[in-house]
Amino acid sequence: MKRTIYFKNKPCIIATSSIAGPKESEGCISKYIETRLDDDMFGESTFEKAETKLLYHALIGAMKNADKSEDEIDLIIAGDLLNQIIASTFSVRNFQIGYMGVYNACATFTESLTIGATLVDGGYLKNVVCGTSSHFSSAERQYRYPLELGSTRSPLAQWTVTGAGACVISNAKNGVKIVSATIGKIVDYGVTDPNDMGAAMAPAAADTIFTHFKESGLTPEYYDLIITGDLGTYGSRILKDILWEKGVDIESQHVDCGELVYNIREDEFQGGSGAGCSAMVFSAYFFRLLKERKLKRVLLVATGALLSSVSSQQGESIPSIAHAVGLES
Amino acid sequence: MKRTIYFKNKPCIIATSSIAGPKESEGCISKYIETRLDDDMFGESTFEKAETKLLYHALIGAMKNADKSEDEIDLIIAGDLLNQIIASTFSVRNFQIGYMGVYNACATFTESLTIGATLVDGGYLKNVVCGTSSHFSSAERQYRYPLELGSTRSPLAQWTVTGAGACVISNAKNGVKIVSATIGKIVDYGVTDPNDMGAAMAPAAADTIFTHFKESGLTPEYYDLIITGDLGTYGSRILKDILWEKGVDIESQHVDCGELVYNIREDEFQGGSGAGCSAMVFSAYFFRLLKERKLKRVLLVATGALLSSVSSQQGESIPSIAHAVGLES
Repeated sequence: MKRTIYFKNKPCIIATSSIAGPKESEGCISKYIETRLDDDMFGESTFEKAETKLLYHALIGAMKNADKSEDEIDLIIAGDLLNQIIASTFSVRNFQIGYMGVYNACATFTESLTIGATLVDGGYLKNVVCGTSSHFSSAERQYRYPLELGSTRSPLAQWTVTGAGACVISNAKNGVKIVSATIGKIVDYGVTDPNDMGAAMAPAAADTIFTHFKESGLTPEYYDLIITGDLGTYGSRILKDILWEKGVDIESQHVDCGELVYNIREDEFQGGSGAGCSAMVFSAYFFRLLKERKLKRVLLVATGALLSSVSSQQGESIPSIAHAVGLES
Repeated sequence: MKRTIYFKNKPCIIATSSIAGPKESEGCISKYIETRLDDDMFGESTFEKAETKLLYHALIGAMKNADKSEDEIDLIIAGDLLNQIIASTFSVRNFQIGYMGVYNACATFTESLTIGATLVDGGYLKNVVCGTSSHFSSAERQYRYPLELGSTRSPLAQWTVTGAGACVISNAKNGVKIVSATIGKIVDYGVTDPNDMGAAMAPAAADTIFTHFKESGLTPEYYDLIITGDLGTYGSRILKDILWEKGVDIESQHVDCGELVYNIREDEFQGGSGAGCSAMVFSAYFFRLLKERKLKRVLLVATGALLSSVSSQQGESIPSIAHAVGLES
C-alpha cells in the first residue's frame, strides 16, 4: 500500500481566482481576495443559486487569469457540500468542457488538485481547472437548522465560508509546482457531535501528515508552512497534540485556513469551514505568496468531515479524511 | 480541448464483484450475479445502512476475487447517490486504505474507472478498487416520495437498482484492458421531469459517444457492444435517434444495462437506473463475457442525471453527463 505519489513533470498551478461573501471579505485576508461581495445572495433568488454563481465566477476567473479560453481547457474537476454537489453541476453546465464531480466534504479541494495534477503530469490532458465552493446559508439549512429558527450556536461550531476558489493546473512551466500528493484515508475516532467537526477531522489530518512524512522521508522543517483546511482553533490544537505524541512537531510550520479567514470575534467561534474555505484562502492568499516566492514549499492539507444529516440522525459518528498536496514555487 | 485519453500501459481490470437485491436477483442476468440477496435490508436497520453494506460487500469481494489483501490495495474510489455519498464513506471506513469520493450520479462508475485507470497507467499506484452502489428504497425516499405513501409511478419512471459492483484495476497484465476513456461534459436539453431521466440523459450519452468516435477516429463497428448505463427503454431510443441524426448508427451494437437488469413486467417500466446499475451489471455480466473472450471490445458509457431534490424544487432542469471507457479482452 502506498498513499504518497510524486509528479515527475511537476505540473503547475498557473493561475487562481477567489471570490468571497461579505463576512469573509472583512476577514484577515480580505485584501487578497479577488472578488469581494457585499451581498451574499449575489443577486440570485436562492442560496443554492448564489453558491452556484460563486463557483462559476471562480472557475471562469481562474481561466481568465490563466489567459486561457474555454477551448484550451480539457477538464473541470469540481465539488461542493450541497446534496448531489449541485453547485458544481450547475456552474459547470455553463461550459462546453469535460467535467468530473468529486466529493470529500471540505477535503474536496486537495482531492481535485490530486486528480488534476495526475491527469496533467501523466500527459493525458494539458489544462485542468479545479474548483470548490461553499455557502454559509445553503450549508446551514442543509446540515443543521433553518436560518429563520435563529438557533444558538455551539461554542465548538465553525462558520461555513461563503466563497469559492479555483486553480488552473497546466503542463506549462510558469507557476507553482505540484510536486507530490498524499491521499487521505478515512479516520473515525467516534466523534458524534456535528458541531464539533474540528475534533472529528484533526485525527484524519494527523494521519495524512504523519503518512506524508513517513513515506516521503521528509520532516516538517522541509516546508515553510503546513496549511490545514478548516480544523479551526480547537481542531488545530488537537492536530498538533496528536502529531507531537507521534514524534512530529509541526508547531512552527502549522497554519489553518479556517483560523485565518475571519477576524474571530463571536459567531464564528472556532473559525471557518466548508469546501470553499481552503480553496478560497489558498487561491487568494497562499498562491500569491508562493508565486511571489515569499513561500518556497508548502504542504496544503484540506480536511473533510464526511457526515450527512441522515448519518447523524441515524446515530453514526463522523468519519473524516484529509488529502495533502506538496507545492513548491 | 480534448476529452478522450488513451492508456499506454493498458491497466487491467483483474477482478470484479457484484451483489444485488431480491428484485435484481430475479432479473435477466440473475445467474451471473455473485451475491443474490433475498432481503433488501441485508440485515440492517435502515436502507442507508443496507446500501453501505452492499457496497462494502462489493469492495471486499473484488479484492478477494483479485486475490489481493487490503495491504496490496493503494486506493478505493467510490461514489453513490446518497446525500454526501455516505454509502461510500461508511463502507470505505472499514478499510485502512486511501479513499477518493466521486460523484456524477449514475455516471459515477465510469468516472471512477477513468480516474483509477489514470493513476495505475501513469505508474502512480499499483492496485485501485473502484465501486459504486445504489438502493431502491434509500434513493426513492431521498429523491421522490416516502415509500409509505405508495405513490403511483410515472410510466417514464425507472427503478433504482438495489445493488453494487466493484472492480480491481491493476498494473498486472491478466485481465480486461482499459484502453481509453472519453470524459463527459454536461448536456442539458431542458428536461424538467425528474421521472423522465432517460430523456434527460440520452443527449449526454449521445454527446460522449459522438465525441469518442470523432476524437478516436473509430466507428461503432470497432466495438462488439456499446453499453450505456441506465437510459432505459425510452432513453435508449432517444440516444439512437440523436446519434443516427448525426450520422452515427449504433443500432447493432447498443445495449443498455437498465434495459437488461430486470424482466420488465410492470413497476420497472423503463428499466433500471442508479449508480449501482451499470456497476453491478458490468461487474456481474459483461466483465465475465470479456474475460471469457466472448466479447473482444466494448465501450462502457455510464450515464448520470445530475439533479437533486432541491434543484428540481427550485425549478431547474436536469443536467446530465456520460463518461465512456473503452475496454478490450
